[in-house]
Amino acid sequence: MALKKIGKQTVRFRNPPIIVSTSSTVGPKEGEGPLRNYFDVILKDDLYGEDSWELAESKMLMETVKEAVQKADKKISEIEYMLAGDLLNQIVSSSFAARSLEIPFFGLYGACSTMTESLSLGAMLVDGGYADNLVTATSSHFSSAERQFRFPLELGNQRSLTAQWTVTGSGAAILSSYGNGPRIEHVTTGKVIDLGIKDANNMGAAMAPAAADTLVNHFQDTGLSPNYYDLIVSGDLGAIGKEIAEEMVLDKGYNITKVYNDCGLLIFDNDAQDTHAGGSGCGCSASVFCGYIYQEMKNRRLNKVLLMSTGALLSGTSTQQGESIPGIAHAVSIINQDA
Amino acid sequence: MALKKIGKQTVRFRNPPIIVSTSSTVGPKEGEGPLRNYFDVILKDDLYGEDSWELAESKMLMETVKEAVQKADKKISEIEYMLAGDLLNQIVSSSFAARSLEIPFFGLYGACSTMTESLSLGAMLVDGGYADNLVTATSSHFSSAERQFRFPLELGNQRSLTAQWTVTGSGAAILSSYGNGPRIEHVTTGKVIDLGIKDANNMGAAMAPAAADTLVNHFQDTGLSPNYYDLIVSGDLGAIGKEIAEEMVLDKGYNITKVYNDCGLLIFDNDAQDTHAGGSGCGCSASVFCGYIYQEMKNRRLNKVLLMSTGALLSGTSTQQGESIPGIAHAVSIINQDA
Repeated sequence: MALKKIGKQTVRFRNPPIIVSTSSTVGPKEGEGPLRNYFDVILKDDLYGEDSWELAESKMLMETVKEAVQKADKKISEIEYMLAGDLLNQIVSSSFAARSLEIPFFGLYGACSTMTESLSLGAMLVDGGYADNLVTATSSHFSSAERQFRFPLELGNQRSLTAQWTVTGSGAAILSSYGNGPRIEHVTTGKVIDLGIKDANNMGAAMAPAAADTLVNHFQDTGLSPNYYDLIVSGDLGAIGKEIAEEMVLDKGYNITKVYNDCGLLIFDNDAQDTHAGGSGCGCSASVFCGYIYQEMKNRRLNKVLLMSTGALLSGTSTQQGESIPGIAHAVSIINQDA
Repeated sequence: MALKKIGKQTVRFRNPPIIVSTSSTVGPKEGEGPLRNYFDVILKDDLYGEDSWELAESKMLMETVKEAVQKADKKISEIEYMLAGDLLNQIVSSSFAARSLEIPFFGLYGACSTMTESLSLGAMLVDGGYADNLVTATSSHFSSAERQFRFPLELGNQRSLTAQWTVTGSGAAILSSYGNGPRIEHVTTGKVIDLGIKDANNMGAAMAPAAADTLVNHFQDTGLSPNYYDLIVSGDLGAIGKEIAEEMVLDKGYNITKVYNDCGLLIFDNDAQDTHAGGSGCGCSASVFCGYIYQEMKNRRLNKVLLMSTGALLSGTSTQQGESIPGIAHAVSIINQDA
């Protein structure tokens, strides 16, 4: 069988999977940001009627999946796989949601790169003929992430200016072998890259080298130039990481400046909302893609998008042990069929 | 394109991926157990020359991958994907190993089900034409797992008789589209199932319902009977979980007793080694499969094996919040070609 691989890290699909629907849920703060009109659900209270932030996050992921399935006019029982992950230890948000949904489940961990990790593997499973319908999803929650990775919220700790704000949000996308919607054309899978950043309050800088590496590999493997795309959008490099990534890619001969943005910069008004370097978290690129970008593609204001979620692969333990922060980024090109 | 799905949860491959090599590493205690002659490397010291158990675990995973690649007579640069995960928060063992290996990386989290999760997705990626060579791997480490999930080792806490002993071990398997070795014929992907067990010292019981569900679905989807296999082997249900799973499967009309065993029971002599209900951890089914079972298949003492790693999807936080323990199990059938 002829390979669908092109170049070193990229796959080109023969039967490009169709993103037939998406759904997005965000917290109150994200619901006051510039993209507020694009989200399906804006929570009034980030506890979402639950006893803990962790349970609230899991409920958010589950309800977002249900909503995406409904918008695709399908039943949960028609969804053959769920590919999902989140930031919490042992990805309990996703596992607990999968428990309620009773869909065969592949748990993923790619930190904030999880949305495109799930889209990448999901697209391979549909194109490869292993499923007609599956759901890819992820979530993050400001409060559950802060207390797991940084400080107890009750401490009221001052945040550094390089720090990013974990998005409370979830996104889910239904991939199908038939139907209407933008299609996944290429997937470029990232390597883990670490240039030695140890500051957990500067994750954009830690992730930027991985983002740059994946972008350069994507252009080399596909032969496409940056301006082929209407939008190249990273997950959550924020203001600092975005600038570093732009420069690193330019160093390799690709100028992405005209078409490049970052979901972490799109979701908040950093000055007005006091979010410092921008949004972060799995739910950042998930809700921005499943909310804003997908709708802009459906209404043809965007036709060719390269979505690249970016992850920082640290743990509380690795940080305490003085380890630096490895990064990873997976890119997925999403194209309107007649564009 | 015609689906490769059969029944509800099972895939049958058209171009069955070949497991061209495996490698296994275990700790000193596992190296004194009944399978000691089957492992490639037995560590003399579970710190493996590192400063922390977490780094030792990551090194073990990395070295096991390297060894598997070498045994397949390939170079690291020929390996197109690494699919791996482990038990540590944010799967740092796998991420840090992937950083050194520089292979495009899909991070997985399926708790102790990770070995068959990686084999399942890896097999789909090879059969689907997205790679000619990839590596699937996982690890666990008694000391890093104990301190993360239970008690500081220094406390010398008494262990309950239902508790299992986390295996210090790693297994890696190279899947290829060409070459010699046993082939992956079917994959049955599990659902998350939770019958309400809350005792983190009785994980076998928590995982047994998921194991039984996956087995029954495998038999229903494929039309195969249990005795088609020489060996049906679960990951780490241990003595208690194994008995529960056997009964639950029998309730559905399938008698697996004659061919069924559990990696957690194979790896230790529970009486002599004081391991109570048996071994557990991602590294349990990984090292038992990549060590013992694979060699027994190569020398034709086993020809048809159904390997089903089993995972308990709890976190320290979910346990503290009083949540019950969801389980999951993925089954992979591995067949000698001329058997």
